[in-house]
Amino acid sequence: MSNSFCGLSSQGGAREVLIARRLYVGLVHYPVYNKRSERIASAITSFDLHDLSRLAKTYGVRRFFVIIPLRDQQKLAERIIKHWTEGYGAVYNAFRKEALELISVFSSLEECISIISENEGSNPVLIATDASRRIARGLSYVEARKMVDSGQPLFVLFGTAWGLDEEILKRADYLLDPIESDAGYNHLSVRSAAAIILDRLAGKATS
Amino acid sequence: MSNSFCGLSSQGGAREVLIARRLYVGLVHYPVYNKRSERIASAITSFDLHDLSRLAKTYGVRRFFVIIPLRDQQKLAERIIKHWTEGYGAVYNAFRKEALELISVFSSLEECISIISENEGSNPVLIATDASRRIARGLSYVEARKMVDSGQPLFVLFGTAWGLDEEILKRADYLLDPIESDAGYNHLSVRSAAAIILDRLAGKATS
Repeated sequence: MSNSFCGLSSQGGAREVLIARRLYVGLVHYPVYNKRSERIASAITSFDLHDLSRLAKTYGVRRFFVIIPLRDQQKLAERIIKHWTEGYGAVYNAFRKEALELISVFSSLEECISIISENEGSNPVLIATDASRRIARGLSYVEARKMVDSGQPLFVLFGTAWGLDEEILKRADYLLDPIESDAGYNHLSVRSAAAIILDRLAGKATS
Repeated sequence: MSNSFCGLSSQGGAREVLIARRLYVGLVHYPVYNKRSERIASAITSFDLHDLSRLAKTYGVRRFFVIIPLRDQQKLAERIIKHWTEGYGAVYNAFRKEALELISVFSSLEECISIISENEGSNPVLIATDASRRIARGLSYVEARKMVDSGQPLFVLFGTAWGLDEEILKRADYLLDPIESDAGYNHLSVRSAAAIILDRLAGKATS
């Protein structure tokens, strides 16, 4: 199983040597908040699957988990993935195929954690992202980057809709500092947040 | 005109003092390349308008120009913007209104440059982004960040579709280094690229 599971080992032996990081990303569709702070399951967004899988491929993420318990939404995600990995999309754009192949769709966070544990031999450290700053279990980007570079298995979780439910935040080992700006505006899309966070955690040192 | 033009001065006097940068962003729909390296005009994408305007607001960008000469596509962009700044969207989500208000739609790069020059009193330095590394006029992130911090007017251009046409690259003063990664995969969406680049150029120092 590990060969088909780990994108890096199945696709680029030479690259694997370079990338010691054992980084996993999860896009959570349930449980998340809606605008009225109610717990909901959000719908699959095709742009999220494309943008986040391309980011995952760029930053050497081992697997990009989409977490959604609704069967019809799982089927929709799987149909999109199949189009780009086996259907016409795979012929039309091989780079997109390479990215979308990193996606796995699961019903729950716990299932993803089991898969990572099985693959890595130990449970991943769970890092949740949130637009609010938390004092307890807060994690700076410098600290997070050190953890990535150390090669320990990490699972970074992003929330769709109005963000990760408190249940996930409580379950997490760390809560990554929010992306703050001088302008005081803190309302990025999950696609933008994931891009910025993955670059801060695993991007090449800026030069 | 300058009051309604400059998002920062019209909306947040207190913030303006903090943000010395005079940064402008352009999303180019023409001239760009298609997959076969032909010059085309690309279609408006609603996700681009939302994601990039929210990024612009986050990083204190003064105006986000959408450059598209096709009249029907201009109308589409304007309809989307109006929905979120004056229509139901403005009531539904005031944060989205604040972001979308930063967008202006123009037919050509030259028109945008004129507007910036009029607003800032001098021509902006043109920085084009591209997924390939260029030797002539190449600009590192460290150098670009210094230019942003110096407060000189800068206009950063992003290409849709398969990227900015050579005509734009030749017109630019600088070509920003590509976003490179250890994994050797260089195929991000323009949304992801804009997020990463704006964070590198104007994000808070990582701590």
